[in-house]
Amino acid sequence: MRATIAYDGAPFHGFASNPEVVTIQGEIERALTVVLRHLVQIGCAGRTDRGVHARGQVISFDADLGHFEPVALTRAFNRMLDPSIVMRDVELVDDTFDARLSCIGRSYRYRILNSKVPDPLLTDLVWHVRDELDLRAMNVATDRILGLHDFSTFSKRNKSRPTETFLRRVHHAQWRRFGETVQFDITANAFTHQMVRTLVGYFVDIGLGRRRAADLGAALAAMDRAVVGSPAPPHALILWSVKYGDGPVVKP
Amino acid sequence: MRATIAYDGAPFHGFASNPEVVTIQGEIERALTVVLRHLVQIGCAGRTDRGVHARGQVISFDADLGHFEPVALTRAFNRMLDPSIVMRDVELVDDTFDARLSCIGRSYRYRILNSKVPDPLLTDLVWHVRDELDLRAMNVATDRILGLHDFSTFSKRNKSRPTETFLRRVHHAQWRRFGETVQFDITANAFTHQMVRTLVGYFVDIGLGRRRAADLGAALAAMDRAVVGSPAPPHALILWSVKYGDGPVVKP
Repeated sequence: MRATIAYDGAPFHGFASNPEVVTIQGEIERALTVVLRHLVQIGCAGRTDRGVHARGQVISFDADLGHFEPVALTRAFNRMLDPSIVMRDVELVDDTFDARLSCIGRSYRYRILNSKVPDPLLTDLVWHVRDELDLRAMNVATDRILGLHDFSTFSKRNKSRPTETFLRRVHHAQWRRFGETVQFDITANAFTHQMVRTLVGYFVDIGLGRRRAADLGAALAAMDRAVVGSPAPPHALILWSVKYGDGPVVKP
Repeated sequence: MRATIAYDGAPFHGFASNPEVVTIQGEIERALTVVLRHLVQIGCAGRTDRGVHARGQVISFDADLGHFEPVALTRAFNRMLDPSIVMRDVELVDDTFDARLSCIGRSYRYRILNSKVPDPLLTDLVWHVRDELDLRAMNVATDRILGLHDFSTFSKRNKSRPTETFLRRVHHAQWRRFGETVQFDITANAFTHQMVRTLVGYFVDIGLGRRRAADLGAALAAMDRAVVGSPAPPHALILWSVKYGDGPVVKP
């Protein structure tokens, strides 16, 4: 089965299952296990960090549907959970489909409120940046990350995976302004840990005149997280959509 | 002084001061009293109900500014309160200005998510209506409330004010669809208690085929709240903006 899931990341301790805390994967697997009456384990297109939201997360799982029509499964699932996690749709797919391995593109959206005062109705969804951002400079730097690069500088390393690769291919990345809202959209084949938020923090430094767009190349080449600043806060980041190809999936 | 205030209505027990609970007026007066170091009482353009938000509420108050520039007052105020209440701007105005009495128009916006499944990121800000709304029928009925009418049917009566008038003049009212978002904008000289939410509940009944648009006239004429249904939930309603005229203000 393949399902599209949306969630508010705020109330959860991240995506990945952890028996000691309430996580998004844990809640999804618990709900599916109750509804389907057999143990369910899911794969996902992108393991979002703690506090990050999703509009178009995709999960895959094996299911014995029994008497369930797919649409009835969606309804039963959504009744099980409060609306902080919602199944948008579900469909039967080929057994070879794997939400992570079959995925060929992930798109994230980051939203900044660039205004003198914050907006009380958007506090939980945007990063409030008071001083005016220079989007032209930010987009000059953003153009430099297009294509295949080693994103070590912009990644949080996992000590338990010393041989991890940080090579990722960025298909699209762009900053746009809509009134006081500044929006960053980025699509890549995949992302390393904290890559989007670390890039956003760096681009915002450029937009505020604290760094120069021309230094982006040197920052990438340094392959050292110490040369960049803090990642942007997670609550303004949304896993927007993911893409699957038409070709056959080769499982390892 | 005249100030524009935005707030998230969710954490407060309504607008109006009440010494037993935390209210928006109470928080604003407390913050201004601390910042200005003298007791401050405010007037407002519209006393929003519990749970209702504001983007462009206007308040008036007497202030001995002392060393404060107006912009410094805004900063000091916003530092005092968490971002659920924000002062957007403040200006010195003529002593005759009164946020309530000088106001000649109030505009509210109500937002509905009209989709099969809810959106986890909008749960606190929109009313989720699953079945498709017929906006054409809703706008036919909405046109009938334009102009001067007695809105007794669509008002919550206050027993302590038996001589209250329910005559209000609606300048503009319209339903629009933007994808899955359905938005209602209404401007009137003033509103009675729960008038917007009761109208929205009635129009949604029409949009779902539970009532006929043609019956709106009879509902108004009945002058009886019993002929309409429940008010729509407050969390999707925003006091969007208010309007002041250029002419002199006549205080009673």
